[in-house]
Amino acid sequence: MELYNFLKDITLQAGENIRKQLNEPLLIETKSNPNDLVTNMDKATEKFLFDRIQDTYPDHRIIGEEGSGKDIDNLNGVIWIIDPIDGTLNFVHQQENFAISIGIFIDGEKYAGVVYDVMRNILFEARAGHGAYKNGVKLENITETPLATSIISMNPNWLTKDFTRDIYIPLVRDSRSARSYGSAALDFAYVASNKINAYITLRLHPWDFAGGLIIVEEVGGIVTNQLGEPVNLLTANSIVVANKSLHTEIMNDYLSPFKLELEKIHQGRFSKR
Amino acid sequence: MELYNFLKDITLQAGENIRKQLNEPLLIETKSNPNDLVTNMDKATEKFLFDRIQDTYPDHRIIGEEGSGKDIDNLNGVIWIIDPIDGTLNFVHQQENFAISIGIFIDGEKYAGVVYDVMRNILFEARAGHGAYKNGVKLENITETPLATSIISMNPNWLTKDFTRDIYIPLVRDSRSARSYGSAALDFAYVASNKINAYITLRLHPWDFAGGLIIVEEVGGIVTNQLGEPVNLLTANSIVVANKSLHTEIMNDYLSPFKLELEKIHQGRFSKR
Repeated sequence: MELYNFLKDITLQAGENIRKQLNEPLLIETKSNPNDLVTNMDKATEKFLFDRIQDTYPDHRIIGEEGSGKDIDNLNGVIWIIDPIDGTLNFVHQQENFAISIGIFIDGEKYAGVVYDVMRNILFEARAGHGAYKNGVKLENITETPLATSIISMNPNWLTKDFTRDIYIPLVRDSRSARSYGSAALDFAYVASNKINAYITLRLHPWDFAGGLIIVEEVGGIVTNQLGEPVNLLTANSIVVANKSLHTEIMNDYLSPFKLELEKIHQGRFSKR
Repeated sequence: MELYNFLKDITLQAGENIRKQLNEPLLIETKSNPNDLVTNMDKATEKFLFDRIQDTYPDHRIIGEEGSGKDIDNLNGVIWIIDPIDGTLNFVHQQENFAISIGIFIDGEKYAGVVYDVMRNILFEARAGHGAYKNGVKLENITETPLATSIISMNPNWLTKDFTRDIYIPLVRDSRSARSYGSAALDFAYVASNKINAYITLRLHPWDFAGGLIIVEEVGGIVTNQLGEPVNLLTANSIVVANKSLHTEIMNDYLSPFKLELEKIHQGRFSKR
């Protein structure tokens, strides 16, 4: 519990730091290139989290989007997997709809995860085996839904590529409706809180989903890659996250028929993060 | 100003009613097809607005999504165009990300519009010629952006249909990224507040865009159908809303090359609402 509370504390503090800096309009406006700002904020947030973790738990290891733990090639001991700002384009363009995402794994086993919607101050959190919470309110098990009455999230970009559109068009067409929010971590949180019923994407890094994976599995969500295999925490992955029956329907009726094509797409693409 | 304040007052009251009632069980019926959900809340909200308007301004006419003013075939006098809950699927599935949308036109001229994000309590409002506001803060003119650095909003469904996908795939592919939020009124408000740079869709009813149109045009946004023509307030329309240079780029480089196909799609589809 001490580690869990520490995880939540530093997440909320990191979010507070981001909000403080975003609310200083001069800082944004004096930057000639908004991408500089986000790089600085990403890096500053990762450094803040890194320093706090290393000060308190010097033996823990950290994999971060901004470069921490690049050399880590096994899951021994306590590993933090961190995305300081998930949804970078939203951060730059919207100054909202981004999240801090953190998952902690101990010897490869799930320990705890957070997804923090910084600007709306909504903390999704879960300790493995102890349920998931949204701002302190326990989340119920997610509803099982057929695709025909499901809202799914998928970036429209996957429908524009020659090598993927035939795979995903039937899935989108047969759903009730499709959304695209621009933050994988929030997509996991939205599946966990029953706002959407599935999220499908072809390439995510461990830091994009490590926090959300632990949260959504606490409420009955199923997470695999698009070949139906468990995700790998040390490499990039394709992703299907959904309630149990919808996950089965998507795999059996929509992705398995393209197993050969998907295997070809997967070959070599996901060997590293 | 009396009419404008009245518009804002009843919008906020209608939103308050929705928030209060959201805990009561919803009656969901299907309209023409199973994906077209209408709830008792849609009807109650339209009735509330209708009654308030008729009590105060008995000579005003009202066109509403839930059936008010079906017989109205001209824009003489004061016309209210109302969507009590824009984003019904979001309302049903998420209990958020929906909006009350209202536009008022006098003898066919824009008078005022509101888009009210009910659950986040964010009111976008504009009186024609007097600027647009988000929760009382004046919105700046929107930024002109090239497609390559633009975030555009488009429902992925348009990329799945044989008769449209060749038209829209290049547009999505050449954008910086695409989003889909599930509420046309909020999409207009997001363009107006610079969260996204364009919103493109093939079929909207007047109530979906009447409020947003007035708001976005106050901050320099351009709204036309996909043939580049002014939108018609008495029929369904295709829509392109974007900042000025992006609207030009989308029309010239992406839609005009498909003018013949688009004209064919438009023929007969948009003669009524």
